[in-house]
Amino acid sequence: MSVITVERKILAKNDEIAEQNRELLKQNDVFTINLVSSPGSGKTSLLEKTISLIGSKVNISVIEGDVQTSLDAERVANYNVPVVSIVTNGACHLEAKLVQDAINNLDLAKTELLFIENVGNLVCPAGFDLGEEMKIVVVSTTEGDDKPLKYPKMFRNSDVMIINKIDLIPYVNCDISKLKDNALLINPGLKIFEVSCTSGEGIKEWCNWLIENVKGKYIHQTQLVY
Amino acid sequence: MSVITVERKILAKNDEIAEQNRELLKQNDVFTINLVSSPGSGKTSLLEKTISLIGSKVNISVIEGDVQTSLDAERVANYNVPVVSIVTNGACHLEAKLVQDAINNLDLAKTELLFIENVGNLVCPAGFDLGEEMKIVVVSTTEGDDKPLKYPKMFRNSDVMIINKIDLIPYVNCDISKLKDNALLINPGLKIFEVSCTSGEGIKEWCNWLIENVKGKYIHQTQLVY
Repeated sequence: MSVITVERKILAKNDEIAEQNRELLKQNDVFTINLVSSPGSGKTSLLEKTISLIGSKVNISVIEGDVQTSLDAERVANYNVPVVSIVTNGACHLEAKLVQDAINNLDLAKTELLFIENVGNLVCPAGFDLGEEMKIVVVSTTEGDDKPLKYPKMFRNSDVMIINKIDLIPYVNCDISKLKDNALLINPGLKIFEVSCTSGEGIKEWCNWLIENVKGKYIHQTQLVY
Repeated sequence: MSVITVERKILAKNDEIAEQNRELLKQNDVFTINLVSSPGSGKTSLLEKTISLIGSKVNISVIEGDVQTSLDAERVANYNVPVVSIVTNGACHLEAKLVQDAINNLDLAKTELLFIENVGNLVCPAGFDLGEEMKIVVVSTTEGDDKPLKYPKMFRNSDVMIINKIDLIPYVNCDISKLKDNALLINPGLKIFEVSCTSGEGIKEWCNWLIENVKGKYIHQTQLVY
């Protein structure tokens, strides 16, 4: 019983800080994406491709979460965007407090789009609100087509699913229609993109949607304010 | 502070039950492997290949852990081995108590080799002893070569690393020498196998090692007892 109580307290405290983050990001017109996936699905590669394509049109900042090392942060920093690295030292997910500390090290006035790359883990990050606009789950074709059924919470809590590594479809045991059906069974409202960070296929469509949403949000907010 | 106390209690309780499991499995001459990896690395495919090749020589039983669904358990059950399915309903790792309940549903007298397929997660299962002889970590070439550095605890706590999907090396960004170097940097004693569950490459070497260890253990124990 004591365990449940403590978990509730942790989540309640996390949600409280997540709301503070959300409020601060909103005030600064920052569109924030919490990027989640298994280890090695290609979150960092997707960031690299995305920044390459639209980094000159949208001011992007990145918070990089990792259990250990700042390898991903270093990769992304090569693309000349502000990056804050969070090393969790063993913890399996990011929490709102860590993100709050990271946000305090960013210039929000110069950020239109903030990516938070979560720890590679399809389970634990699903339960932790960081104050983001939406979770986006990346799943690669090499992981097979059953992951939405086996890890439903992550797919239920995401607004978008990006299927990465579609260039490997000829070589792997993954029925992409089945993968999409399984995902939509868990979350019928899921927006789906199919991309390859290796060949570049689909990256343009994903980036167009992203820009529309980032810019669209400003128009919406301006209408609200004025 | 209360969180730390509770976590310690949970781990202490887990370790106590893990020791009971270990003792029971030892008494019954069961060689037990805790199979860990990211989602989609190929743990279940490896089990299928392994059972196909040596299922007639060694009595194998399987405990299948999943966050949701019994899809993997159904796949393995097709190979006519006893399978107990644990559905964690959201929990990100197996614990010793769940494994204890599963073991009670197996005929240990008819089991020489027990595989426990853990939840697909490179972080949390690293910290939970289930009473196994050893952890074996599966990593696939599609995940890149940096995973041992980014998730060191799992590679430090494993005795063996199986590199799966070596048939995909020509198509992915993974330097296999670097992957091995990174793993050995974290754990210099790690035994490494390179396999493809698609082409079958390397499966024989892995299975030979497995049989030697399972049978070797019996000889060792017999010498001790008599």
